[in-house]
Amino acid sequence: MRTVDLNADLGEGFGAWEMGDDAALLGVISSANVACGVHAGDWDVMARVMREAVARGVGIGAHPGFPDLQGFGRREMQFSPDSAANLVRWQLGAAQAMARAAGGAVRHLKLHGALANMAARDEALALACFRGALSVDPALVLVVLAGTAQERAARQLGAPAACEIFADRAYQADGTLLDRRLPGAVIHDPQLAARRVLAMLRAGAIQPEDGPPIPTRIDTICLHGDTPGAIGMAQAVRAALEAEDVAITAFPGEPLR
Amino acid sequence: MRTVDLNADLGEGFGAWEMGDDAALLGVISSANVACGVHAGDWDVMARVMREAVARGVGIGAHPGFPDLQGFGRREMQFSPDSAANLVRWQLGAAQAMARAAGGAVRHLKLHGALANMAARDEALALACFRGALSVDPALVLVVLAGTAQERAARQLGAPAACEIFADRAYQADGTLLDRRLPGAVIHDPQLAARRVLAMLRAGAIQPEDGPPIPTRIDTICLHGDTPGAIGMAQAVRAALEAEDVAITAFPGEPLR
Amino acid sequence: MRTVDLNADLGEGFGAWEMGDDAALLGVISSANVACGVHAGDWDVMARVMREAVARGVGIGAHPGFPDLQGFGRREMQFSPDSAANLVRWQLGAAQAMARAAGGAVRHLKLHGALANMAARDEALALACFRGALSVDPALVLVVLAGTAQERAARQLGAPAACEIFADRAYQADGTLLDRRLPGAVIHDPQLAARRVLAMLRAGAIQPEDGPPIPTRIDTICLHGDTPGAIGMAQAVRAALEAEDVAITAFPGEPLR
Amino acid sequence: MRTVDLNADLGEGFGAWEMGDDAALLGVISSANVACGVHAGDWDVMARVMREAVARGVGIGAHPGFPDLQGFGRREMQFSPDSAANLVRWQLGAAQAMARAAGGAVRHLKLHGALANMAARDEALALACFRGALSVDPALVLVVLAGTAQERAARQLGAPAACEIFADRAYQADGTLLDRRLPGAVIHDPQLAARRVLAMLRAGAIQPEDGPPIPTRIDTICLHGDTPGAIGMAQAVRAALEAEDVAITAFPGEPLR
Repeated sequence: MRTVDLNADLGEGFGAWEMGDDAALLGVISSANVACGVHAGDWDVMARVMREAVARGVGIGAHPGFPDLQGFGRREMQFSPDSAANLVRWQLGAAQAMARAAGGAVRHLKLHGALANMAARDEALALACFRGALSVDPALVLVVLAGTAQERAARQLGAPAACEIFADRAYQADGTLLDRRLPGAVIHDPQLAARRVLAMLRAGAIQPEDGPPIPTRIDTICLHGDTPGAIGMAQAVRAALEAEDVAITAFPGEPLR
Repeated sequence: MRTVDLNADLGEGFGAWEMGDDAALLGVISSANVACGVHAGDWDVMARVMREAVARGVGIGAHPGFPDLQGFGRREMQFSPDSAANLVRWQLGAAQAMARAAGGAVRHLKLHGALANMAARDEALALACFRGALSVDPALVLVVLAGTAQERAARQLGAPAACEIFADRAYQADGTLLDRRLPGAVIHDPQLAARRVLAMLRAGAIQPEDGPPIPTRIDTICLHGDTPGAIGMAQAVRAALEAEDVAITAFPGEPLR
Repeated sequence: MRTVDLNADLGEGFGAWEMGDDAALLGVISSANVACGVHAGDWDVMARVMREAVARGVGIGAHPGFPDLQGFGRREMQFSPDSAANLVRWQLGAAQAMARAAGGAVRHLKLHGALANMAARDEALALACFRGALSVDPALVLVVLAGTAQERAARQLGAPAACEIFADRAYQADGTLLDRRLPGAVIHDPQLAARRVLAMLRAGAIQPEDGPPIPTRIDTICLHGDTPGAIGMAQAVRAALEAEDVAITAFPGEPLR
Repeated sequence: MRTVDLNADLGEGFGAWEMGDDAALLGVISSANVACGVHAGDWDVMARVMREAVARGVGIGAHPGFPDLQGFGRREMQFSPDSAANLVRWQLGAAQAMARAAGGAVRHLKLHGALANMAARDEALALACFRGALSVDPALVLVVLAGTAQERAARQLGAPAACEIFADRAYQADGTLLDRRLPGAVIHDPQLAARRVLAMLRAGAIQPEDGPPIPTRIDTICLHGDTPGAIGMAQAVRAALEAEDVAITAFPGEPLR
């Protein structure tokens, strides 16, 4: 029986503002990427979502991003690798403390937004971020975008890792995501998304819209919770996977070879 | 031979802005209270000061404050105890990660500014902050203002603790500090400061300007580094203590009884 | 025919986060209090809401608050009167620029959250805030909480003013609002709210739950848009007023005597 | 008799942190670019520096930057032109209010740091920022980096403008500044700086280290106050100019042709 992890970003509220439906997502996913209070989230939001994740048995991850609250960490910022490493350490530590106080522990780390995008292109930046994180916890599982500089950095470091694909996004021939502003870039049909995920899992490869399959290890599938219909999509993908005897469980975190 | 700890606030720069002379202070103190990036400090400042503290063998503490960068955490803010606990956890975790990455560890926690002042008056707030911190690390040493609600909270929790007095501040009959805007509140003469500290250490008591001694355990003496002459004052206090055979070393962290 | 103004807080989103239904409120109110990017709102949110307010012919006000985004400006902060005056000036200026760029102008100012509450108790703080605002624009209409230190400050300054009552909140015998956490403090029945507003308008007095009427000029009624049912409440109050031949129009801004 | 303006960035402290020697610079310059509380500065710092500038008869400018306090606005951020325009408007308005309350007015605008650098390369971004500013005040003088996309944007808009060169920076053949990390990029010798400025003023051209002169209108010379020796450099440049009968006075703000 095949297994796969489902992950989603959680704890993306801030103060009086809410975002997404954390409670519903926690019923679908096996790993939660929790915003660390820099691009989103705060100490109170983190405390709440960490407690809920522990109660639901969902794996907890730190989800660090750029210090750009107004831009939700989605604007690229020119960070030196050293500063990026410190930024990641700082957020990881905050997440570890909140997880510990909630009776849990941070098991994985996934970069957010523009920091993730830049690290997917720039191996030096990915290495800096990941080395920063591992200097805090060498057993941390690095969740990486399959087929990108993030994956190469994690492989080079020999660190625990999990390779991620997207359920609801179209891939380009080079393995990167099609710009979400382009037609067809975002898949809105849950059944189509589920079929694509199943096909990629079976093939052990990313399937670009326009190009040959790109073989990759697939450990986790990224779901979203912050758009209309997102929860329905997430539930449909999970149901489709379970219907095909794929068990949903947290990734093992095997190093990449 | 008597021993005592000397502590000071460090890492209070932010981005392009500097404050105090961390390098000079690290040559004087045995425990550093490092700002956690909320009222002052940032991930880069923390990385720098943590590395230096580790290199100098100075004990590292987290120094959490209110989220009020423009006010340097010195303005009182109405925080619920729950939120204050989360705020402390979050900052403690960030400090732990930065310390770990620097090859060290956070050994103690001291509240900053208005948060410290409010917790010195309000035992419920002190308990919330300290419980929050201990939920992250039960072995953490709580540095408390001697004779205040902070001390009472630490005693009630039975947690590792260190009682602090000030070298350069006048005390009132109730054991609290005289408002720093009042004449005589701040002592600028290093020799006078050193003599007062020695007298309080020998007596095992706070000596108010205007009232009987208040017996207290004295584990650590707070020095300052952010005012003109501060380094000279700190060095003079250390020299005076050493001249009287008081050894400067990090506090043991015995629980209060 | 009697006239009254209806006001509400708008532009309380921040970055990726939304709050309230600005478009719906703009169809009900005659004056909008626009968050200035400090406790809520940002340059993009302000641009959007100012354009809509201009298009709908709704009067624009600056709604400055404490620099506490995570607390939505609802936590009291210890600000000196001078700093509070500068804080108000700064936010007012930002709002004026956004209004001008949108083809409008800032006509009034209403303090937000904890700053408003503190200024309702503390006449020196209210004077500082209002003098700060008037030093930027002497023709600004000060929207004040009827019966509070805010009103007294505006009267003392002889400035253009508008006195505000709440449609959905119970008053205490001293004219202040009953703590919203207490039973009966918040009125959820639109018809009841509308009847109370009409009664207060007719009497020219605040009607406490438990005490004699407190005569006051009533120029504007505060509505809310950020809670479930808020829009329905706002619409019901407007409809009830119009049914009683009360015309909804922006306050004249007569100085208080 | 020739005239030229001398400008410098002021008000770059934040809260408890200071930067540069505003008082000394105000004795040298004729135009002050005041940080607006986003990349540096705050309402209190602005109030102070505006009052001093008014008292000294120094022209006041808004100096908007990216919302990146920890990076001092020096890190490039991916802003859409619309957002950049709003960001500039918002900061300009805040500066206008602080200037008005201080008895003065904002006369010019100069972009800061990474925003300035990006707008020097990207005419669409420069246009967006400048149009944003002019939508708030059509009479505003745009201070532009001579020979860059900023200058082209100001020319295209036909707006009041002032062309700026640097006293202490080496130019490349294309008229852009040599990267300050490269040898020779920053001139530390005040006499050399003064001679270069005089030569450029006489030639009406930027003089690259390695290439032919680039003709340009020169209205203002940028001085710095935040580095060791900066005040001495500024004073030396002013003295050298005055010794050559160049009068220091605020730029007229003639549109570029």
